[in-house]
Amino acid sequence: MRIGPYGFEEYIEKVTSFHGSLAPGLLAGGIMVDIAQANLPQGELYDVICESRQCLPDAVQILTPCTIGNGWLRIVDTSRYAVIFFNKYTGAGVRVHLDAARLADWPALRAWFLKETPKKDQNRDRIIDEFRRAGTSIYGIDKVTVKPEFISSSPKKTSAVGICPGCGEAYRLQHGPCCPACQGKGPY
Amino acid sequence: MRIGPYGFEEYIEKVTSFHGSLAPGLLAGGIMVDIAQANLPQGELYDVICESRQCLPDAVQILTPCTIGNGWLRIVDTSRYAVIFFNKYTGAGVRVHLDAARLADWPALRAWFLKETPKKDQNRDRIIDEFRRAGTSIYGIDKVTVKPEFISSSPKKTSAVGICPGCGEAYRLQHGPCCPACQGKGPY
Repeated sequence: MRIGPYGFEEYIEKVTSFHGSLAPGLLAGGIMVDIAQANLPQGELYDVICESRQCLPDAVQILTPCTIGNGWLRIVDTSRYAVIFFNKYTGAGVRVHLDAARLADWPALRAWFLKETPKKDQNRDRIIDEFRRAGTSIYGIDKVTVKPEFISSSPKKTSAVGICPGCGEAYRLQHGPCCPACQGKGPY
Repeated sequence: MRIGPYGFEEYIEKVTSFHGSLAPGLLAGGIMVDIAQANLPQGELYDVICESRQCLPDAVQILTPCTIGNGWLRIVDTSRYAVIFFNKYTGAGVRVHLDAARLADWPALRAWFLKETPKKDQNRDRIIDEFRRAGTSIYGIDKVTVKPEFISSSPKKTSAVGICPGCGEAYRLQHGPCCPACQGKGPY
């Protein structure tokens, strides 16, 4: 089994190096990216939405040109393990999700995905083996059209920049007369 | 000049490969990560917050173990070009920002950062050269304590998982009786 341009083991090595550990979600994520790309029209520019923050975005960042910092990857957290690849102008795209209903034959995968077993009691080698053997059979694929407000990942890019009268730092003036942090929305 | 474990040119190559292009913000980001790490207590476990979505998160992901998918990197968008490295238990940390007030001697940097010049008229080689020559002199550094609600990047990890009665997909039950997408918060 291959994932993206990599052999299975090579992908594991690559994604583990980036992510810091081999979380099972990275395997699901890699296979989901492949399914999505195989079902997209060739030659179009696409953006990606991850519906989960956990692991999945790292598979996307390793396997596609889309990163969180270049704006082609966004996270819209619906708490579901799904990824959407969509035309960045029209929003037309493909959504792939890990389908709990297709896990009956894969007990280790099911126990991991539905958190039926505490993490410490999960057998990671068995989970990896089941991912490899299950191949693409445990994922659902649907055509979707992304809502306009989620298309165009970075409308702020063209916004004018000024100096915040509160903190003296540069910010995009579209946020108002002072920066979001000085409006009380900062993290510290 | 070195950035992280890389020579300047080597860093440019590495981060450009990941990000897809050499945005000037990646250079600022790399230097900011180095400043933050040099000012942290050694041996502590830290998380990172980027106050901007643009470019900066990719510098963090290339230079640190913190990624968007492993939860050690979060984006709290205040529209300011700043990064916070903080103790993941106490919130005590270091904030580094690109300081507009220190750019008087660096006209190309200033024109890029404050968007005084349209992108098409910016001279990227000159911007890169000014970044290299300015070194660490154009950044502000402050001790901060991250608010408790921004510490502990992924409290959801322990939440129970169930099947959404709306879409049939797995989701974390803490979100309510159906998943966020079926509550109208989905991207398609």
